[in-house]
Amino acid sequence: MTSMVQTTDLTGQMLIAGKPVRGTGTEIRGIDPQNSAALEPAYAYGDGTHVEAACAAAAEAFAAYRGAPIETRARFLEAIASNLESISDALVDRAHAESGLPRPRLTGEVGRTAGQLRLFAGVLREGSWNEARIDPAIPDRTPLPRPDIRQRSVPLGPVAVFGASNFPLAFSVAGGDTASALAAGCPVVVKAHDAHPGTSELVGRAITDAVAACGLPAGTFSLLYGYGPELGTALVTDPRIKAVGFTGSRGGGMALMAAAAGRREPIPVYAEMSAINPVFLLPGALASHGADLGRAFVGSLTLGSGQFCTNPGLVIAVDGPELDAFLAAAGEAVAASAPAAMLTPGIADSFRTGVEALEKEAVLVARGSDADAPAVSCRAALFTSDAPTFLGSEALQAEVFGASGVVIRCADAAEMLRVAANVEGQLTATIHADESDHDQAGDLLEVLELKAGRILFNGWPTGVEVGHAMVHGGPFPSTSDSRTTSVGARAIERFLRPVCYQDAPKSLLPSAVADGNPDGLWRRIDGQLTKD
Amino acid sequence: MTSMVQTTDLTGQMLIAGKPVRGTGTEIRGIDPQNSAALEPAYAYGDGTHVEAACAAAAEAFAAYRGAPIETRARFLEAIASNLESISDALVDRAHAESGLPRPRLTGEVGRTAGQLRLFAGVLREGSWNEARIDPAIPDRTPLPRPDIRQRSVPLGPVAVFGASNFPLAFSVAGGDTASALAAGCPVVVKAHDAHPGTSELVGRAITDAVAACGLPAGTFSLLYGYGPELGTALVTDPRIKAVGFTGSRGGGMALMAAAAGRREPIPVYAEMSAINPVFLLPGALASHGADLGRAFVGSLTLGSGQFCTNPGLVIAVDGPELDAFLAAAGEAVAASAPAAMLTPGIADSFRTGVEALEKEAVLVARGSDADAPAVSCRAALFTSDAPTFLGSEALQAEVFGASGVVIRCADAAEMLRVAANVEGQLTATIHADESDHDQAGDLLEVLELKAGRILFNGWPTGVEVGHAMVHGGPFPSTSDSRTTSVGARAIERFLRPVCYQDAPKSLLPSAVADGNPDGLWRRIDGQLTKD
Repeated sequence: MTSMVQTTDLTGQMLIAGKPVRGTGTEIRGIDPQNSAALEPAYAYGDGTHVEAACAAAAEAFAAYRGAPIETRARFLEAIASNLESISDALVDRAHAESGLPRPRLTGEVGRTAGQLRLFAGVLREGSWNEARIDPAIPDRTPLPRPDIRQRSVPLGPVAVFGASNFPLAFSVAGGDTASALAAGCPVVVKAHDAHPGTSELVGRAITDAVAACGLPAGTFSLLYGYGPELGTALVTDPRIKAVGFTGSRGGGMALMAAAAGRREPIPVYAEMSAINPVFLLPGALASHGADLGRAFVGSLTLGSGQFCTNPGLVIAVDGPELDAFLAAAGEAVAASAPAAMLTPGIADSFRTGVEALEKEAVLVARGSDADAPAVSCRAALFTSDAPTFLGSEALQAEVFGASGVVIRCADAAEMLRVAANVEGQLTATIHADESDHDQAGDLLEVLELKAGRILFNGWPTGVEVGHAMVHGGPFPSTSDSRTTSVGARAIERFLRPVCYQDAPKSLLPSAVADGNPDGLWRRIDGQLTKD
Repeated sequence: MTSMVQTTDLTGQMLIAGKPVRGTGTEIRGIDPQNSAALEPAYAYGDGTHVEAACAAAAEAFAAYRGAPIETRARFLEAIASNLESISDALVDRAHAESGLPRPRLTGEVGRTAGQLRLFAGVLREGSWNEARIDPAIPDRTPLPRPDIRQRSVPLGPVAVFGASNFPLAFSVAGGDTASALAAGCPVVVKAHDAHPGTSELVGRAITDAVAACGLPAGTFSLLYGYGPELGTALVTDPRIKAVGFTGSRGGGMALMAAAAGRREPIPVYAEMSAINPVFLLPGALASHGADLGRAFVGSLTLGSGQFCTNPGLVIAVDGPELDAFLAAAGEAVAASAPAAMLTPGIADSFRTGVEALEKEAVLVARGSDADAPAVSCRAALFTSDAPTFLGSEALQAEVFGASGVVIRCADAAEMLRVAANVEGQLTATIHADESDHDQAGDLLEVLELKAGRILFNGWPTGVEVGHAMVHGGPFPSTSDSRTTSVGARAIERFLRPVCYQDAPKSLLPSAVADGNPDGLWRRIDGQLTKD
C-alpha cells in the first residue's frame, strides 16, 4: 500500500488554484531517514511565474471567499478535516516514509490536524472573532451629537504559509496556520516543506477537493514547491500577500521578517522559531522524586528525537545531592536511549554541529547509543554547566534542535531566578514544585510570565493541547510576535483587523453589526457584552 | 495669566522617575505661530544618559506597577484626568501659545484627554482586557488526560511614546498611547514633541503628581526632551523598552519601525502616520446637494488648518455639471478662507513644498487668502485632476499635511471603484450617498473595508469619537499595524500579550483565572463566555 501511494497516486505536481502544475526547476524527492532512500516521485521547484499565478488567483478569490456565508466557511474546514481522515492510512504511510516519525504519532497527528480544522469551524460559528461592537448614536449630545459607530473584524487578505518539517501534518499544509487563515477568510498559498513533498501533495489535494466541493473560488488555496530564499522570498514580497505564517528555524524566520519589513507595504509575519524551554526543578520536588523526574525528563527530551519546538533543552536547579540523583537517573536514561531517525539529513547535521558546540562549553553527562542507527538519526546528549557559564555563553543558550539538553547547577534560589530573568523569550517554561516550593514558585512565575507563552507545573512541555485557552507563542526569539498564538482558537486573530462604520445606512451594514443581532453574536453595546 | 504659566511655573526640565532633570544639549523653545516669538523657558535636550536613567527606572518599576491592584491602576488614570482638568486654563493658555490652535478647540481637547483616561479606567474595571479563558482538565480523556489550561493577558513591559505635534494634549504626553499603555500595566517613557515643550512639562507634572499620590513606583512615568534621530532612536533601541507608540510623519514612523526591527529583540511599533482620507461623492448625493457638500467639505478641509490625521485630502466623483457645482462652491469657500496659524515653521514649510508639488501635477481651483496672515500659517489650496493622472502620480497620492485637497474627476462609477482599489491604506474613507446610491455604495464599501480603518457615510472624517467601537487605524501607510487602533477601548490590546498556565497550583493562579471567578470577569470556559 505504501508504494502505491508513493508511486501511483502522487503526481509530483504543484497545485495552483485547483490545477496541477509541473515545476520547472531543481527536482527534489522525499528521503526516507531509515535508509536514505530517495522516494518517488520527484517534485520540481516552481519559480516566480508560479508565485505570480498563485497570488493572482488568491487575490481574485479573496472577495468571494471572504464574502461567502460563515456557515460555508465552517463546512469547508470540516470538509478538509473529513478528506484528511478519509486518506489517513495513505497520509500516515507517506509521512512515515518521508519523516521517519513513528506511525502511532502520525496517526495521532492526522486526528489533531482534523481536530484543529473543526475547532476553527466551531470558532467561526460561535462568532466572537467578529469583535462586534456598537456605540449607538446620541443625537442630542452637546456640544456635538455622537454618531453611530459599529466595529467588526475583516480578514487581512491572502496569506503565505510555510510548512514546518517536524509536524508534516499539524504544522504543515493543512496545519494551524492554514486552518486559522482560512477560518479568518483569507485565501492561502502554501510553500511545501522539502522534507515531506509527497505528504504535502496528498494534503494539498484534500484541500483542493474541499474547495471545489464547497463551491469556493479555486484561488482560495494553492500549494507551491520551491527554494526558500527564492520562491519563499518572492511569495512574501508579492504585494498581494498580506500576512505570513511560518514555523521553522530562527534564521529562516528572521529572513522572512526582514523580507516582509522591507516591502513597500510591510506585512505581519507570524514566525514560530526558536526556544530551549527551561525547566525549573524546585528543592521540594527534587528531593521527593528527583530520580523519577530525571527519567521523565529524558522521556520528553527524546520524544520524536527531540524534534519539538517545545523540547525541554534546559534544566535549572540548585546544586547538591538531590540534583545529582536527578542527573544520575537522567544520564542513565540517555545512555539507554536508542538512536532515532531525524527528519532530514540537514537537521541531523545541524544537531551534530550543535552538540559539538555544547561539548566545547559544557560538561558531558551522557550520550545515547549509536547501535543499529537509522541512516539519518541522532544520539541523545546530556550536559551540565553552571549558571555564570550559561549566562555568558551564546552556544549554551542557543536551541539545538533534537534530543540535547543542558542541566544548569545553581548556587541557590536567587541564582535560579537570575537564570530565569536572563534567558531569551521562550514558548514554554516549566516549574516542578511541591507544596513546600510554592513561595519560590511564585517568585519564578512572576519572572517567567514575561519570558514565555505557556507556563507548566509538574509536567513536560512536549505536547500542545489544541483548545480555547492554549498559547503556543512567546517573546522573541520563540516567535516574531508575542501578542499571538499559533495554536488554539485565538490563532484566527492573527489574520483579522478591525474596521468601523460611522453612520452607515442600515441596508449596508454587515450582519455582524446589524440592528437586531441577526447572527446571534455576543456583541459590545457601549462596551457591555450582550446578545441583545 | 499666560505669562505667569510660561515664565514662572515652567522649569524647562525633564522629568525622570519623578525628578526634574535639566538636559545638557541643544536648547529649544516653544514658538508662537502668531508672531514667531520664542517662548520661555528654554528646554535643553537630553542624551543617552537620560534615556538610560528613564529606562532603568521604568524597568525597575514594572513589576510593582503591573502587580498593583487593578483598582489602583484605574484610580491612577482618573487622578491624571483630574490633575489635567485642575490646570485646564494654564494648559489651554500654554498650548494655544505654542500651537496656535484656537482656545475652544484646546479646551475641548483637555476634556477629551481626561475622558480618554477615564475610558481606560472603565475598561480596566470591566476586565475583558484580561481575555481570561479556562479549558478545564479532563483527567479521564483517552488516550491522554487533558491538563488544566488557563489564559490571561500580561503587559509587554516599558513603552516608549512619541508625542504628536497636532494634538498637544490628546495625542501627546498624556494622550491615547500613554493612557492605553499605562492602563495595560506598562510604565511609559515619553519623548516630548518639540512643538509644545511647555505644554508637555505641565502634563508631565500632572502625571508625575498622580504617580506619587497613588503610591506607585516613580519609574512608572518619565518625560524626556531630545532630538528624534538621536534620543528617540536611543529610546526605541533600549532593550528594556518593549513597544513603541508614535503619531507623526511617514518618514518618522518608518525610521522608528526600522530601528525597532533592527534590535536584537524586535519590538512592535504602533505608528500612526500618513493618510489622505478619500471622500467618494455618489451621483444621487452630488445631484441633490452638491454645493452644500462643497462648502461642508471645505469646512472639514480647513479645520485646524487641515492639521488632522483624518483631514479629507481627496475627493472622488464622476465628472459633470453636478461635480462642477460642488467644485464651484468648494472653490468659493477656499478662496474666502482666512490664512490660519500652523503648528510649527517646519510644518508650514512642508505644506508649501507639498502644495508646490501638487501645482505641477494638478489643476489649481482656488487658494485661500493671505491677508493678515499669522507669521506661521497656511493658505488653503484646492486642486482637480483626473483618475489616470492621479493613479500615475506619487505626488498626488502623498499626504500634504495641512488644508490642501484634490478632487478627482472620474469617467464613471467603475473608475471611481478603480481609484478606491488603488489608493494606499487609509485611516478613513467617506461615502456621500443617498438612497438611490446604495448599490454603488455597497460596491465601494467592499473595497474600502480593505483600505481603511473607519468608513463614514454622509459626514466628514475630522473628529474621532473616543469610545468602545472606534477604530483609528488602518492599513499601511496610515499605520504600521492595521490590526490595532490607537483611539478607543481596544487601544489597550496593543500593549498586552497572552500567557497560559498549565496545571498551575490553585494558590499560584492569577485572580483573573482563579476558580470561583473572584474578579467577576467575563471568561471563556471551554470557549463559552460566562461570568460563572
